[in-house]
Amino acid sequence: MQYPERLDRYRGQVEAALEQYAAAFNGPAALREAMSYSLRAGGKRLRPTLLLSTCDLFNGDGHDPWPAACALEFVHTYSLIHDDLPALDNDDLRRGMPTCHKRFGEALAILAGDALLTEAFHLIGRSYRHAAPAVGIALTAELSEAAGAAGMVGGQVLDTVNVDPHAPIMAVEQVHRMKTGALIIASVRCGAIVGGADEESLAALTRYAAHIGLAFQVTDDILDVTSTAQELGKTIGKDAAQHKTTYVSAWGVEKSRAYAAELIDRAVAELSVFGDRAATLRDLAHFIRERKN
Amino acid sequence: MQYPERLDRYRGQVEAALEQYAAAFNGPAALREAMSYSLRAGGKRLRPTLLLSTCDLFNGDGHDPWPAACALEFVHTYSLIHDDLPALDNDDLRRGMPTCHKRFGEALAILAGDALLTEAFHLIGRSYRHAAPAVGIALTAELSEAAGAAGMVGGQVLDTVNVDPHAPIMAVEQVHRMKTGALIIASVRCGAIVGGADEESLAALTRYAAHIGLAFQVTDDILDVTSTAQELGKTIGKDAAQHKTTYVSAWGVEKSRAYAAELIDRAVAELSVFGDRAATLRDLAHFIRERKN
Repeated sequence: MQYPERLDRYRGQVEAALEQYAAAFNGPAALREAMSYSLRAGGKRLRPTLLLSTCDLFNGDGHDPWPAACALEFVHTYSLIHDDLPALDNDDLRRGMPTCHKRFGEALAILAGDALLTEAFHLIGRSYRHAAPAVGIALTAELSEAAGAAGMVGGQVLDTVNVDPHAPIMAVEQVHRMKTGALIIASVRCGAIVGGADEESLAALTRYAAHIGLAFQVTDDILDVTSTAQELGKTIGKDAAQHKTTYVSAWGVEKSRAYAAELIDRAVAELSVFGDRAATLRDLAHFIRERKN
Repeated sequence: MQYPERLDRYRGQVEAALEQYAAAFNGPAALREAMSYSLRAGGKRLRPTLLLSTCDLFNGDGHDPWPAACALEFVHTYSLIHDDLPALDNDDLRRGMPTCHKRFGEALAILAGDALLTEAFHLIGRSYRHAAPAVGIALTAELSEAAGAAGMVGGQVLDTVNVDPHAPIMAVEQVHRMKTGALIIASVRCGAIVGGADEESLAALTRYAAHIGLAFQVTDDILDVTSTAQELGKTIGKDAAQHKTTYVSAWGVEKSRAYAAELIDRAVAELSVFGDRAATLRDLAHFIRERKN
């Protein structure tokens, strides 16, 4: 499946915004270079796109969603840099390019990750401090909760340091909810907060995000056995080599596909209250089921 | 010089507050253990003490300074964990105990640092989101700016990755301003913000903090050649072994002592407008000049 046009438009705008922020980074040149290198490495920009298209569902009070959208991508990028480190996943390639530590050395990769995580909160802090303090502190709370010990970092610990090769798939699903699901949910919730969503909409969108977050992981497991390294731009077959429990190892490809389809159906059902305004979020859900990379 | 009683009282209260927060950490047990281990490793708790005693100068609007104070210590602790890593300073001992990666392995040390940094913003986010959003987003902005690429992380890059052994001392001083000075200034500024300081007081306190931050580094360089590993609880003589420019290598011990004394005098002079209320901040300044560890 081609990347849907509506999503591609958001991606182009996100690339331009990230470029602007990267060009304005402060600090030593070597650090800025390492931060920008990883930030520019591409990808679908799924989290900013989710944030922006969720925000666009509402009329809002005219608050600017761009700092929040880019902050989400900073956090995602920092997590990839640290996950790729020799002490963790020890990956040499990311999106077909040398990983940050292969290109800049381990010390600078650790510090570039630290700086991007910190810069995410600085971007939120300085952008909303005067214009919308209540929105800004809500974003700080949502993002830090999702990215922290009970969310993304905790999931990474369970996925890398404390791996149980005999874990049942539902225990592995809980790891996915923390490692990747939490930040996807935060992207949607932050978009809803900037847009000024009511509680009911926020709850429906949170469920939408939880479903697509899991579906993304199911299709990830499927692609890990059905795709090629070239198509994916990263090492494949790693889960099997590490004897990790995956949806595919537990259920096989067909049942995993059916589960992904069910999750996407449930995600899309949550969007019905928004009618045509949710077209982009619907495209995104369908893309996740059909994606080839 | 003994640690002054007024400061020791703050330290005791900070230890208790950190303990409470550590006991309530979420996430996988292994991660919580690594985070708590480093947080409990002691130290003078200089940054929370600065924040709390600065806040106490003002009547304020009754906002709670404790989440901000502990968030500062989370950030400081994360920076020590990452600085000690093999790829950076490669230190085995910190405050007389095995460093986080020696005790828990490198992967968990990296992730425990990431989680503590994130948890600092989560603590601020959840504590001030409803009670004082404008204070909370100001703290987010101040802390993230001080800890980021233009502050602490940037200073660490210049101190570890891009070291120039022939750097003149005034260039090294700029590195100190970033690596340790920025977070000390942020401690005082965050205390002033929670306390509701006026602009003039904030400016005077910022200058006070800049002076004691530099003085702290000067006395650090002096202790590195005049103290023992046992007294300091860390490796000594490292700067000389690495041929780094220090105040002592540039100026000798006596002139360095005189410079520290001058910085402390200037710091104390900034406190005159606060009269007796600034007794703790004055104690702190004098302690930094006289300290033996």
